[in-house]
Amino acid sequence: MKKIGVVDTTFARFDMAHAAIDEMQMLSPNIKIIRSTVPGIKDLPVACKILIEEKQCDIVIALGMPGGQPIDKQCAHEASTGLIQAQLLTNTHIIEVFVHEDEAENEKELAWLTEQRTREHARNIVDLLFHKEKFQKQAGKGLRQGFADAGPLP
Amino acid sequence: MKKIGVVDTTFARFDMAHAAIDEMQMLSPNIKIIRSTVPGIKDLPVACKILIEEKQCDIVIALGMPGGQPIDKQCAHEASTGLIQAQLLTNTHIIEVFVHEDEAENEKELAWLTEQRTREHARNIVDLLFHKEKFQKQAGKGLRQGFADAGPLP
Amino acid sequence: MKKIGVVDTTFARFDMAHAAIDEMQMLSPNIKIIRSTVPGIKDLPVACKILIEEKQCDIVIALGMPGGQPIDKQCAHEASTGLIQAQLLTNTHIIEVFVHEDEAENEKELAWLTEQRTREHARNIVDLLFHKEKFQKQAGKGLRQGFADAGPLP
Amino acid sequence: MKKIGVVDTTFARFDMAHAAIDEMQMLSPNIKIIRSTVPGIKDLPVACKILIEEKQCDIVIALGMPGGQPIDKQCAHEASTGLIQAQLLTNTHIIEVFVHEDEAENEKELAWLTEQRTREHARNIVDLLFHKEKFQKQAGKGLRQGFADAGPLP
Amino acid sequence: MKKIGVVDTTFARFDMAHAAIDEMQMLSPNIKIIRSTVPGIKDLPVACKILIEEKQCDIVIALGMPGGQPIDKQCAHEASTGLIQAQLLTNTHIIEVFVHEDEAENEKELAWLTEQRTREHARNIVDLLFHKEKFQKQAGKGLRQGFADAGPLP
Repeated sequence: MKKIGVVDTTFARFDMAHAAIDEMQMLSPNIKIIRSTVPGIKDLPVACKILIEEKQCDIVIALGMPGGQPIDKQCAHEASTGLIQAQLLTNTHIIEVFVHEDEAENEKELAWLTEQRTREHARNIVDLLFHKEKFQKQAGKGLRQGFADAGPLP
Repeated sequence: MKKIGVVDTTFARFDMAHAAIDEMQMLSPNIKIIRSTVPGIKDLPVACKILIEEKQCDIVIALGMPGGQPIDKQCAHEASTGLIQAQLLTNTHIIEVFVHEDEAENEKELAWLTEQRTREHARNIVDLLFHKEKFQKQAGKGLRQGFADAGPLP
Repeated sequence: MKKIGVVDTTFARFDMAHAAIDEMQMLSPNIKIIRSTVPGIKDLPVACKILIEEKQCDIVIALGMPGGQPIDKQCAHEASTGLIQAQLLTNTHIIEVFVHEDEAENEKELAWLTEQRTREHARNIVDLLFHKEKFQKQAGKGLRQGFADAGPLP
Repeated sequence: MKKIGVVDTTFARFDMAHAAIDEMQMLSPNIKIIRSTVPGIKDLPVACKILIEEKQCDIVIALGMPGGQPIDKQCAHEASTGLIQAQLLTNTHIIEVFVHEDEAENEKELAWLTEQRTREHARNIVDLLFHKEKFQKQAGKGLRQGFADAGPLP
Repeated sequence: MKKIGVVDTTFARFDMAHAAIDEMQMLSPNIKIIRSTVPGIKDLPVACKILIEEKQCDIVIALGMPGGQPIDKQCAHEASTGLIQAQLLTNTHIIEVFVHEDEAENEKELAWLTEQRTREHARNIVDLLFHKEKFQKQAGKGLRQGFADAGPLP
C-alpha cells in the first residue's frame, strides 16, 4: 500500500484536493491518502516535507493557485524553490500543481483549467508510483497539463 | 502547553506582535508565547530558527512590513526565501505575515490592514496547533488575510 | 563500467534522451545507461539526485525544453537552481541541457538545435568520465553547444 | 567576554569596519573584536561563517557597499541570500549593513550615510548581545538605519 | 605547501586559467595548482566543491565569461548562487572571477579586461592564503578588479 500526500491551501479558489483525490482513487484502489491543508502556497514546502518524513508518504502532490499580481508571482517563485529543496532533502518527488489566476480568460475557464490540470497531474502521481515506464514512452511528446498538449516537434 | 514564537521588527511601523499576541491569548489559554524582536525582516529567518531549535517553539509567526521601494521588495524576497529554508531545516511551520507599504492607499488603511492581517494569521497559528481540521473545511475557499476574501470560483 | 543517468521529460517536444543515449553509446561501449523520465523540468533535480544516490550513477545528463513565456523562464531558473543544489549535495556533475523554445526561429530549427545541443553535451558527459584532459585543451575556446562556437577572442 | 566578528571589503569606498569597531568599543568594554577583510560582498557569507564556526564569534556584522549598476544589485542579492543561509546554518545573527551607491545624491552624502548606518547597526550588534530587551520596546516604531526613522503609523 | 584549485570553462573566450596560474606562480613558489576545466559556468560550483573536498584545495578561483544575453545573466546568477553555497558547505573561499561579455566596448577591450581582472583576483588568492593582513590595510579603498579602482570616498 503506497501513501500519497495531498497538500492544498485555503487561499486557492477551487477545491483542488478534492479533484486530485477523486482522480487518484478512481485510478488505484491500492493507495492511502494523507491530506494536509495550509493557508497559502508558501506554507506548502514544509507541509510536504512533514508528510514525507513524519507520515512516510511515498510521494506528494502540492496544490496551489497563485494570484495574478507581481507579488503573487514572487510568492510562487519562493514556494517552487522551496518545493524543489524539500524534494532534494528527502529524495522524494513532490509534484507541484500551480494554476496562476491570470492563465485563464475568465473565472469559468479558470475553474475548468484548475480541475483539468489537477486531475492530469493526479494521474502523473499514480503513474510515478505504479507505472513509471509510461513516462518513458511519452518522453519528448510535448505533453501539457490543463490546456492542450503542444505535441512533439514535426 | 504549546509554545508559540512571535518574531517582529523595529523596522515595522505598527506593533504587529502586540496584535498577534492579543489575538492568540484571546483564542487560547493553553499557549506560552516566546517573543523575539529584531531590527529588520532579513533578521527574521535565523531568529525564528533559534526560537524553534533553542526555545522549543512548536510554531512561529514572523511579522514584518517591507517598504515600497524595489530594494525593499528584494529584501522581502530574500527574507521569505530564508523563512522557507528555516521551516525545511526544522520541519516546523513559520507563518509569514508581511504587509508591504504600497499595499494600502494611505497610512490609516495601512495600519488597519496590518492589524487585520496579523490578527487573521494569528488565528491561523492557533488553528494549526489545535484545530488543524478547520483548514481542510476551508480548502479552496479563496481566503485572504487582511482585505476581503476572494471566495471560491463560481 | 561507468553508470550514466539520463533524465528527460514528457513536456519536451523532442526525444532528447534518445539522441543523448545514441550519441553516448556510439562513443563508448564501456557505459551503463540508467534512464528516468519525469513530467517537467522542475521534476528533474530530485530525479537526478535519486539516480546518483540510489542508482549509483557517476554522472547525469538532465534534458529539458522550457517554453517561451515568462513563467517558463522562471520554471527554468528554479530547475537550474535545483540542479546545482543536487550537484553540491552529491559532489557529482549533472550536465544541464536546456533548449528554450524561443531560441529558434521555427520548429524545424528548434528540432535541429535540440538534437545538436543534446548530442554535443552527450559527448561532454563521456569526456568528463573518460577524457577529462580534453576540456583543459579546449579551455577558453568559446565553445558552444548547438549553434556555432563563439571562438576565442582575437 | 563576547566575541564580535567584523567583516568588510576592499571594494567598499568607506572604512566601514573602522566606524563599526569605534562605535562598539565606545559602547561596551566587554567585547573582543575579530576582524576579517575580503575583496567583495560575495566573499562575505563564507567569511562570516568562518568567524562564527572557527573563531567562535557570538555575532557578526557584515559590511558592504554595492555599486549602482544592475549587475551590482544582483551581486548584492546573491550576497544577502548567502548571509541568510550562513545564519541558518549556524543559528547565529549576522547583521548585514549594505549601503548602495545610488542611495545618496552625491559622494559626500554617501560617506555620511555609510558612516551613519554602520554606527547605528553597530549599536544594534551590541544591543543584540547585551540589551535584547531594548528591541522589544522599539518594536513597530519604524526605525531606520542611516536616514531618518519612518516612525510608527499614526 | 598550499593547494590552490583553478576551475575554468570551455565556454569562455579567453584562457583565464593560464593567466591566473601564471600570475600565482610568479607571486609564490610555495603553492600547488590543481586545475579542472568544465563546459560552462553552471558546472563551476560542483567542480570547485570537489576540488576542496576531494583534492584538499585550500582555496579555489572560479573563472568564467557569461554571455551578454538575458539568459546568460540568469545563468551567471545561478552559478554565483551555487558558488556561495559551495563556500558555505566547505568553509572555504572560492573567488569568483566573472567577466560579462557586455562589459567591454569591443573584443580587444574584452580580452584586456578578462586578463586584467583574472590576474588581479589571482593576486587576491595568494594574499588570502599568505598575506591576509594586506586586505585590512586596503579596506574601504574602493578597489576594483579589471577597470580602474573607484577609490575611497573623498
